[in-house]
Amino acid sequence: MSKMWGGRFEGGLDPYFEEFNRSTDFDCELAHFDLLVNAAWAAALGHAGVLEADEVERICAALETLREQWSEEGLLISDTTEDIHSFIEQQLTELVGDLARKLHTGRSRNDQVATDLRLYLFERVAMIMNEARDLIASLLEVAEQHSATPLPGYTHLQRAQPITVGHHALAYVEMFGRDLSRFTDLWERADYCPLGSAALAGTAFPIDRDALAESLEFTQGATRNSLDAVSDRDHVCEALFCCSMVMIHLSRLAEDYIFFASHEARFLEFSDLVATGSSLMPQKKNPDAMELIRGKTGRVAGSLQAILMTLKGLPLAYNKDLQEDKEGLFDGLQQTESCLIVAATAVRSTTWHEERCREACEHGYLNATDLADFCVRNGMPFRDAHEAVGAAVRRALELGVELHDMSDEELTSLFPALDLAVMRDALAVEGVLARRDVLGGTAPSRVAEECARWRAEVESWKV
Amino acid sequence: MSKMWGGRFEGGLDPYFEEFNRSTDFDCELAHFDLLVNAAWAAALGHAGVLEADEVERICAALETLREQWSEEGLLISDTTEDIHSFIEQQLTELVGDLARKLHTGRSRNDQVATDLRLYLFERVAMIMNEARDLIASLLEVAEQHSATPLPGYTHLQRAQPITVGHHALAYVEMFGRDLSRFTDLWERADYCPLGSAALAGTAFPIDRDALAESLEFTQGATRNSLDAVSDRDHVCEALFCCSMVMIHLSRLAEDYIFFASHEARFLEFSDLVATGSSLMPQKKNPDAMELIRGKTGRVAGSLQAILMTLKGLPLAYNKDLQEDKEGLFDGLQQTESCLIVAATAVRSTTWHEERCREACEHGYLNATDLADFCVRNGMPFRDAHEAVGAAVRRALELGVELHDMSDEELTSLFPALDLAVMRDALAVEGVLARRDVLGGTAPSRVAEECARWRAEVESWKV
Amino acid sequence: MSKMWGGRFEGGLDPYFEEFNRSTDFDCELAHFDLLVNAAWAAALGHAGVLEADEVERICAALETLREQWSEEGLLISDTTEDIHSFIEQQLTELVGDLARKLHTGRSRNDQVATDLRLYLFERVAMIMNEARDLIASLLEVAEQHSATPLPGYTHLQRAQPITVGHHALAYVEMFGRDLSRFTDLWERADYCPLGSAALAGTAFPIDRDALAESLEFTQGATRNSLDAVSDRDHVCEALFCCSMVMIHLSRLAEDYIFFASHEARFLEFSDLVATGSSLMPQKKNPDAMELIRGKTGRVAGSLQAILMTLKGLPLAYNKDLQEDKEGLFDGLQQTESCLIVAATAVRSTTWHEERCREACEHGYLNATDLADFCVRNGMPFRDAHEAVGAAVRRALELGVELHDMSDEELTSLFPALDLAVMRDALAVEGVLARRDVLGGTAPSRVAEECARWRAEVESWKV
Amino acid sequence: MSKMWGGRFEGGLDPYFEEFNRSTDFDCELAHFDLLVNAAWAAALGHAGVLEADEVERICAALETLREQWSEEGLLISDTTEDIHSFIEQQLTELVGDLARKLHTGRSRNDQVATDLRLYLFERVAMIMNEARDLIASLLEVAEQHSATPLPGYTHLQRAQPITVGHHALAYVEMFGRDLSRFTDLWERADYCPLGSAALAGTAFPIDRDALAESLEFTQGATRNSLDAVSDRDHVCEALFCCSMVMIHLSRLAEDYIFFASHEARFLEFSDLVATGSSLMPQKKNPDAMELIRGKTGRVAGSLQAILMTLKGLPLAYNKDLQEDKEGLFDGLQQTESCLIVAATAVRSTTWHEERCREACEHGYLNATDLADFCVRNGMPFRDAHEAVGAAVRRALELGVELHDMSDEELTSLFPALDLAVMRDALAVEGVLARRDVLGGTAPSRVAEECARWRAEVESWKV
Repeated sequence: MSKMWGGRFEGGLDPYFEEFNRSTDFDCELAHFDLLVNAAWAAALGHAGVLEADEVERICAALETLREQWSEEGLLISDTTEDIHSFIEQQLTELVGDLARKLHTGRSRNDQVATDLRLYLFERVAMIMNEARDLIASLLEVAEQHSATPLPGYTHLQRAQPITVGHHALAYVEMFGRDLSRFTDLWERADYCPLGSAALAGTAFPIDRDALAESLEFTQGATRNSLDAVSDRDHVCEALFCCSMVMIHLSRLAEDYIFFASHEARFLEFSDLVATGSSLMPQKKNPDAMELIRGKTGRVAGSLQAILMTLKGLPLAYNKDLQEDKEGLFDGLQQTESCLIVAATAVRSTTWHEERCREACEHGYLNATDLADFCVRNGMPFRDAHEAVGAAVRRALELGVELHDMSDEELTSLFPALDLAVMRDALAVEGVLARRDVLGGTAPSRVAEECARWRAEVESWKV
Repeated sequence: MSKMWGGRFEGGLDPYFEEFNRSTDFDCELAHFDLLVNAAWAAALGHAGVLEADEVERICAALETLREQWSEEGLLISDTTEDIHSFIEQQLTELVGDLARKLHTGRSRNDQVATDLRLYLFERVAMIMNEARDLIASLLEVAEQHSATPLPGYTHLQRAQPITVGHHALAYVEMFGRDLSRFTDLWERADYCPLGSAALAGTAFPIDRDALAESLEFTQGATRNSLDAVSDRDHVCEALFCCSMVMIHLSRLAEDYIFFASHEARFLEFSDLVATGSSLMPQKKNPDAMELIRGKTGRVAGSLQAILMTLKGLPLAYNKDLQEDKEGLFDGLQQTESCLIVAATAVRSTTWHEERCREACEHGYLNATDLADFCVRNGMPFRDAHEAVGAAVRRALELGVELHDMSDEELTSLFPALDLAVMRDALAVEGVLARRDVLGGTAPSRVAEECARWRAEVESWKV
Repeated sequence: MSKMWGGRFEGGLDPYFEEFNRSTDFDCELAHFDLLVNAAWAAALGHAGVLEADEVERICAALETLREQWSEEGLLISDTTEDIHSFIEQQLTELVGDLARKLHTGRSRNDQVATDLRLYLFERVAMIMNEARDLIASLLEVAEQHSATPLPGYTHLQRAQPITVGHHALAYVEMFGRDLSRFTDLWERADYCPLGSAALAGTAFPIDRDALAESLEFTQGATRNSLDAVSDRDHVCEALFCCSMVMIHLSRLAEDYIFFASHEARFLEFSDLVATGSSLMPQKKNPDAMELIRGKTGRVAGSLQAILMTLKGLPLAYNKDLQEDKEGLFDGLQQTESCLIVAATAVRSTTWHEERCREACEHGYLNATDLADFCVRNGMPFRDAHEAVGAAVRRALELGVELHDMSDEELTSLFPALDLAVMRDALAVEGVLARRDVLGGTAPSRVAEECARWRAEVESWKV
Repeated sequence: MSKMWGGRFEGGLDPYFEEFNRSTDFDCELAHFDLLVNAAWAAALGHAGVLEADEVERICAALETLREQWSEEGLLISDTTEDIHSFIEQQLTELVGDLARKLHTGRSRNDQVATDLRLYLFERVAMIMNEARDLIASLLEVAEQHSATPLPGYTHLQRAQPITVGHHALAYVEMFGRDLSRFTDLWERADYCPLGSAALAGTAFPIDRDALAESLEFTQGATRNSLDAVSDRDHVCEALFCCSMVMIHLSRLAEDYIFFASHEARFLEFSDLVATGSSLMPQKKNPDAMELIRGKTGRVAGSLQAILMTLKGLPLAYNKDLQEDKEGLFDGLQQTESCLIVAATAVRSTTWHEERCREACEHGYLNATDLADFCVRNGMPFRDAHEAVGAAVRRALELGVELHDMSDEELTSLFPALDLAVMRDALAVEGVLARRDVLGGTAPSRVAEECARWRAEVESWKV
């Protein structure tokens, strides 16, 4: 087909380059938004007196025809079209003839694709936010059910202090909550309409850009500098950064669950819904869902790095390098959404082995800090208490027992001044948990409080 | 010196590992904030009844002594100290003796360093924001002075349409304006106090965490989940992302200015303040400032990737890997701030060659779009106009002239129906500029409007 | 269909997860190599006495049937197949029935896919190397044709000293030459066969792994540790690194050519084969090919970062995260190959404006170093000469002339001791070029020498 | 001090920019190599007749004086020096007066720093290779001692099949062996001398560059294109890539050891040499060494991305952006070397709990594959065997027993045709290990063979 820009050129394109240059394979994702943008632009040209009212009407009707046709039959694009914008202009020409040749008045593919891309971004971000909310809801269910179920808490992958399964789940709720907040900020910051910026300098026709922005449902109005508007890809970077943070959080959730599901820990068991087997080893039940999520983290962060590197050192305004803004973004948004969905399924369908979790809290000296705290309450400076308990742990390791399993003699010799009965009480898991009774602490009552706070939040999303 | 955790251990550390493990070389940057955190924690322990009022007083007085001493003499750290927290505890011990051994009651270095780091981050972000504002102000001065100075606008590094120097400057003002907004969002999202989270499960002493947060001037209160609080480094990632975006914008500004300063373009000349020469070639005047800024973009984005990769797949809660959160962050914040300062100096001291800029707008067919638009205004569909002008450009290239330099005969033969006088008028630079009279367009009046909007904003910062 | 691993499981997979987990969309790229690996394994099982000779024959015949069928009809994969290995086992089952159920004896998908992937890698690397050689040849043609054509040489994008167009082209020949050498090293390092490593511990059947490696044309034999063999993705990283280096070099070539093609420089003009126009601005001729190449650099380096991040901290041996090794690799190899092809077309079809290049060498004080060198030859220490010439340039700038256009009076007053005629001679472009007569220098004779060396190399590739 | 390039300039530098621009803080690392390069250049100027023999001698003597002085007193650099080259020229001037002003004849800081950097690189790479060899030796010691010690082998962090501790260690030996090979390739590829390339076009004095290269102990001669030589940073990228691969391998070793040291696995215990405690929790023994190594992986890979991004799109030849090549490289090389040293200490000092390792091999159905293989040996197609064993595992899970602990009745009902006694024998750990008797398999005899091969290699390094 003839290009949108052929007039000045004599020779044709090298066929390999033409294929290399073509973006329709991926920018077809923008087709729906390009129709909207075309319709809005036609209307704006109408208001500006460039098109007659009936011309606007015919164009908009034809665009609607295309929309209906594609939602029924799907989008079939000929191999030789340069990009989705050219394709739609072609299709429009088939429907309305030469009138289609007027539609590109006063605009450029530069501001057109910039507008398409923002609309696309908003739709996908909305979907990701929904799935993030669903994952939060699934974690909250775990937290509510297990607000008091003891679980070993780790630092350095060494047992540290008991926490509750609910407290663990809520840590991730906090993370995904921050992710939601990042997406909200991104959206607000990007919610300006670039259309009317033309190639770089602004359109030469009297377009009411704020009205145009409103007609496309941008909430913050029109962009304020045409040069910036056509070359700004901040929102692409920021979206990929927001996705990368979601993936980092998911990768940590995955790491925890994979460890908890190991034969060594066995704190939980994945459902058959999200685990697979081995082609060679018949006994295997592999946490593929969580591993694949963790593995995809690199991919999304890699796409962030890709767009940053592509943008580095680009002169103003539009350069063809910017065509590389799409594939990484599309993939990053899609992968993040999919990972959130799969993670929610995994979390919801997981079985916690409560008894094993509780027992594990009694092995590995998880109450050593509480013994030190007990000493402090009995008047010892903390550093001294820390040292004394350190020595007690060393002794217990020699004996091969836990602190709470040491004999009265041993304990008395180590802590002569203390009341053994009260001390033994202080070392019990329930007491240890209950004493973390501060805002954000793992005491079951505090966990329940945070559950209630998040429950209200989750309910508010449903309205 | 004795470690904060020696009680359980028998053997000493391998000396090479001890050096490898030590963080004092860089976490000494946190010294000032660690003093604040210690003082706030002492007071909180006082309110919780763990310390007597006079104990709190003695500790706070000693911390203040240290602060004064360091601001006079600088911070001198012995080689053998593990980290800044240990160092401060040591120094405190020298001043208040065994009382210092009580201060670590109910807290961990995990929540302590998390709090220090946020306080550090806020201080540095405030400095970056100030410098970003100063760069905006310097660009705005250029924009105000040159709101009507023509400059070739580029796409694909090919001359496209005339813009004004002011319009170009304002494009960057928009970018750095978005950067400010990102830092503001980051700050608000991170403005929660982790102190009281202890190692991972929450402190076992009755600390009023919201009051504690307030005493350290956190505006959003205390973090809501202790496990998350000690292992959350979202704000480190987000700060490095915000810095990366600043650097991307600076790299584009640098690329533009370097090109504008080339012998080929000569639109501007850098001041001797920010240019250097060659050790070999006596004639060289090199735009080192802008190149170095552009070169540092990779470094900051590399630090972003570094922290993302470090966080990937870490189990909850604290792991020693997190010690690697600091150097990249410190460097990224410092580099970004420095680059903003140098860029502002470069922008302010640059001389624009107005005459050369204007002349350049008349070479390279920058008014071709306006010729097409003129045809449209005379009733031709845009695509036909585009083709006709494309052919005219081809003809002009053969003749080696600009469109506005073609003879009446040539123009009439190419555009038989059009009024030559009006057409020639339409091709003049001033007219071309003036017709971009939409919101965000390069028409001088619009540029002036945007200058006024930003001037009001800049003034508001001074209050 | 039934999975390869169903025996131990009761429930089915979640449909969304099943789709998420499926790799056939992309690992179908490995289909051809998987057939080869299956055939080699069948033969190895035959030698090991696990399969009868006629069983081996029937399996190999069926695999050959599949190969023929796919090369004619293409590969049609049902939506529900988990991966390409499962698909091929299914297809084989349709052809040879239960016999297919014996083929997976003693192996795992872990060693199977590891082997497939190396074979794939070798094929694609060979293609990239061919295209890199073609680009070298196209640059060499430029170098041979323009070994003596003057061109301004730049540092800091400021005119520095004259070089020749040929010297410029050969700089890139050197770069792509190093790229070839890196691919060669990668290949040799990866040319070991993992098959027979089974899932992680080595196969339990008496397979002659070295013979097996040879049958698949691995030149270095079998891998030496099964645990490493199934989880080693060094070659994926290294291939993406080698590709990233190619892209870095291409991005610099692109940057140079885009600048040279600007209206400001106009040293060269791109052919219509690889340039496109604007949908809005009829005059535009944009260097899209080179921009798109430059833009894709980020993508390939992003894929390198992605795989590094995915691998970070993975325990031995295989983890599902490793499924993410393919898409980035496939894309990186494909993009690099395409960019090399397009770059060669662009280089070959570019027209150099020799006269403009030569003239440019006479503006911008490119002979200042030679004036200083001339002083040195006349006995002045270099630093003094540098200062004196620096002052001369300052004076020339005031006068608005070049050094060689300064009057005799000016020159004599600046350099009283020197012979004006000889000095003027020393400042001519040809002399400046000719004096760079060292190995690797830009003297046309040296450029010609290097052309001859590379010509011999290029000819040797044709054999 | 006066700059090396002041002649052309009137105004001074902005003080903040001057500080920003200064590289002496980090390029002082190159001081020793810059002395060597200066001496070699002086000699080359002597051979070229630019300097007299006694001038060369005086310069070289003065350089030697500086070298001695610095090795005794360390390097003290005044704050105001622009870079290490200027500093050395200054110092030289203090010793030999105006003669020092002759030394920069015919060269530029561009080729000078390029040469310094390669010499630096070789020295550091040699150190890294030594430490990698030491780590290999330490792993080999583990492998030799534990060539037959059973250890659960994992895929997906699920117990898969038994391997030996030695087999596990040798997997890492293979990885670090590949790393050595990569560094060797890098070295050979970079072993060309850029000196004599001057600023970009080659020196204008008759320097014998091959002789110069030899005098600096470059083994491959002089670089072949001056433009490439001064802007080539391939070896910086490649060194950081090689380091990144080392770090990836170390991160996986760290992950394995951290898991093996967890309370859950307890397969090994770190020595007190490389573990630290908690400031709060007295019982903790944290694997800090391995965590910090894992954490630093991001940092090194981040520096690789940084330099790639910095290089992207740079025009030829030298640009100031390239000053950013050093800090990331220096840090990456240093971190990698340190991590190798610490890892070797950790590996050597670790205690393996052999009995626990062995017992662990008997829990988690690690012999299920062998049961399937046993069925195969008794005539069942592998897929059928896999399914049958899968069902057996399901039954065993219901019963809460291992396969080898199932009653004769159960086993007979599941596998009616098989000989129970032989089957039970096949399920024992020793048999399972011994059957992996292929090249690279985990059979103790094969592990011992590979140990012997590597022992010979390690011995060869000592010569």
